[in-house]
Amino acid sequence: MSNQPRPRTRTAPVAAQTIPDRSLDPDVPLPVVAIRTPGMHPFIFRKMIDGVRGPLVANPGDLVQIVDRDGRPLGYGLWNPRSQISLRLLSRAPEAPGTEFWVRRIDEAVSLRLNTLGLEQETNAYRVVHAEGDGLSGLIVDRYDDVLSVEINSLGMYQRIGPILELFAGRLGTKHFRVHVAERVALQEDFSGRPLASPQLPPRITVSEHGIRYRIHFAEAHKTGFFCDQRDNRRDLAKFCNDRTVLDACCYTGGFGLNALIRGKAREVTCIDLDEKAVALAKENGNANSVRLDVVHADAFGYMRQMGQNERTYGVVVLDPPKLILDRDDVAPGKRKYFDLNVMGMKLVEPGGLLLTCSCSGLLDAPEFLSLLRAAARKANRSVQLLAMTGASADHPVALDAPESSYLKVAWLRIGERLPDEFFEPGV
Amino acid sequence: MSNQPRPRTRTAPVAAQTIPDRSLDPDVPLPVVAIRTPGMHPFIFRKMIDGVRGPLVANPGDLVQIVDRDGRPLGYGLWNPRSQISLRLLSRAPEAPGTEFWVRRIDEAVSLRLNTLGLEQETNAYRVVHAEGDGLSGLIVDRYDDVLSVEINSLGMYQRIGPILELFAGRLGTKHFRVHVAERVALQEDFSGRPLASPQLPPRITVSEHGIRYRIHFAEAHKTGFFCDQRDNRRDLAKFCNDRTVLDACCYTGGFGLNALIRGKAREVTCIDLDEKAVALAKENGNANSVRLDVVHADAFGYMRQMGQNERTYGVVVLDPPKLILDRDDVAPGKRKYFDLNVMGMKLVEPGGLLLTCSCSGLLDAPEFLSLLRAAARKANRSVQLLAMTGASADHPVALDAPESSYLKVAWLRIGERLPDEFFEPGV
Repeated sequence: MSNQPRPRTRTAPVAAQTIPDRSLDPDVPLPVVAIRTPGMHPFIFRKMIDGVRGPLVANPGDLVQIVDRDGRPLGYGLWNPRSQISLRLLSRAPEAPGTEFWVRRIDEAVSLRLNTLGLEQETNAYRVVHAEGDGLSGLIVDRYDDVLSVEINSLGMYQRIGPILELFAGRLGTKHFRVHVAERVALQEDFSGRPLASPQLPPRITVSEHGIRYRIHFAEAHKTGFFCDQRDNRRDLAKFCNDRTVLDACCYTGGFGLNALIRGKAREVTCIDLDEKAVALAKENGNANSVRLDVVHADAFGYMRQMGQNERTYGVVVLDPPKLILDRDDVAPGKRKYFDLNVMGMKLVEPGGLLLTCSCSGLLDAPEFLSLLRAAARKANRSVQLLAMTGASADHPVALDAPESSYLKVAWLRIGERLPDEFFEPGV
Repeated sequence: MSNQPRPRTRTAPVAAQTIPDRSLDPDVPLPVVAIRTPGMHPFIFRKMIDGVRGPLVANPGDLVQIVDRDGRPLGYGLWNPRSQISLRLLSRAPEAPGTEFWVRRIDEAVSLRLNTLGLEQETNAYRVVHAEGDGLSGLIVDRYDDVLSVEINSLGMYQRIGPILELFAGRLGTKHFRVHVAERVALQEDFSGRPLASPQLPPRITVSEHGIRYRIHFAEAHKTGFFCDQRDNRRDLAKFCNDRTVLDACCYTGGFGLNALIRGKAREVTCIDLDEKAVALAKENGNANSVRLDVVHADAFGYMRQMGQNERTYGVVVLDPPKLILDRDDVAPGKRKYFDLNVMGMKLVEPGGLLLTCSCSGLLDAPEFLSLLRAAARKANRSVQLLAMTGASADHPVALDAPESSYLKVAWLRIGERLPDEFFEPGV
């Protein structure tokens, strides 16, 4: 993935002993917060808050009891009045969530990955907690071999991360951790968001997924160089690559390209990315697998335009750009970028070949993405068949009550014959 | 699948020599039909027709040239003014589609299944043509070993089915065929829709998919007893079944149940269907695999209600009902049936277990299905995680210009803990 915002420079991670260590057991009695409109979504926004009730002060990060305006109990959540998301629903059970609650939620999350999905047969890199999708709003935990890599989106989770990490480490047998808070989150939630790391955290390690090795870097803020969400899609791409030429136009650290080359037995694979560090890591990943991955440092738009002018075509084109729609103001220009990228991608595919095209923008839903691809097919003047629409692997579950966390959309398109000149005006 | 409309009684299939044998080469010059609003969808409805132009008469089933109101050429299609879908777009190329066109379309369809998807490594039962999804509106062809089973939705395809079948048989090496026209289609398209069959068509055969054997019956109108579209979902269900108890509540001929039992190593599998013939065939399929499949002749709603009252639970519940929304008048009652079925299904799943729930109703789109499942989860008072949303296997491609043929939606739901009494009113 290219065009990602540059990681900001950070002070060195602090040592383990300064980790926040707020107990997972609640102080009883709890502060009480009344809300205006009871709903099911784990996010309770500021405008839905009626106010703090009763004598107890509710401090930022506190576990609070949630009631409706008539005082009827609705559950428990983590409170942060400084944030637009002032409350995050944790539990709807009648009893206040203590250590037992956290143990249960963590066991359920671990059990999904280890027992239900049996992920350790495929990889030692997977998502252990997917925030709302695992009933733990504000917490994302990825496991990379013996390191837990944590991303925190709420003050309440940050305050409790010490004992939470201990519970995970106990179950997974991991030795190290790192905790990252995005600058945007620290601003929204109004806390320092100091990064944390265990004392012996290795700067880099190697993980394995479906027999392919990837280098993981922990030095740079949140970017480890590896996304677990595309695991199944990387695996399934291989089936389409045998003896084909493959272009991965936003290759990031080479995951799709390596699968095309090694498992897919592609005739030739070209990887492109604009991010120099990603290009370096993609090459390093090639070396880690004893193959030479052809990685070009270039802009996807420019490179593809050039290849189009050269009348170059490929059996398979992969488009997995970084998030092109970052917020609501970005929707129109972001959709335009997706459209342009896909028109170029479609034109570069040989008749009968595959375009694997992705969007990780949560603000572009699946029906809109398909409609944009339909418009792109008309503009590219190609007949296009949708073979499948997939998403993130199942270690990224989505709570039915928080459907917007289903952010990844992956369309598997077979690109057919070139049609004669356009009869109709295309439109996005 | 239960509750399906009963097949009507038919006269015996006619012999091969009476098969329609209209040439695939066009009579040139062609009749010309003008349309009001140029679009990209392969269906051109009666109200979009401006009229026949020029001196040539356009007879039902004819290949015609399509022009806009100013006479500009738009492509070619098959004409049937008696049908609401009065024109079906075949080609947008400048030259009239003759044998070469049909050969190309058929080769592309066969190549997707054999080369791109490599289906013959998995099965000898697959869809060879998926109508609009393969640029052949009105034609559906399934291959079952050496039999082509054809479903026709337009007069124009029916008139040409003889030479079309010859082309497919030449590529696939099949020996037999059967052609079926649904009564509804024969009425809509206003032609006899006489069933056709090759002289030596065997009444039943056995196919294999992922190592499991299925009996296919050709005696009963269109119902062969086997749907190819759930192939990947049947395969993937197995991963969730190890040592689990499984309930397949609308089992039809036992595909999910057999995968749970044989490939999934389930501890116990119970299959339910209301259709006696399906129950008999499910048992026959068990025998064909030398396992005893426990198949109960019962209504899914009644059976599940009873199990709920008995406080029986299962590790895995499968809900793959027949199409519960047949037309627009059916939407509200059909949605209610899906809702009730899923509420009951969710209640029967053990905490941490799986509900695999499907809808093949084209009139219920994926976002609506998810929203209905969310409401069902609230009614059932269970927290629910969506692990994946899948569809039909890739031998059922969808043309981007005809997205409504993406009819099958399959939600993989992990059913969590039981929540306390409802706080909120659920609604569909």
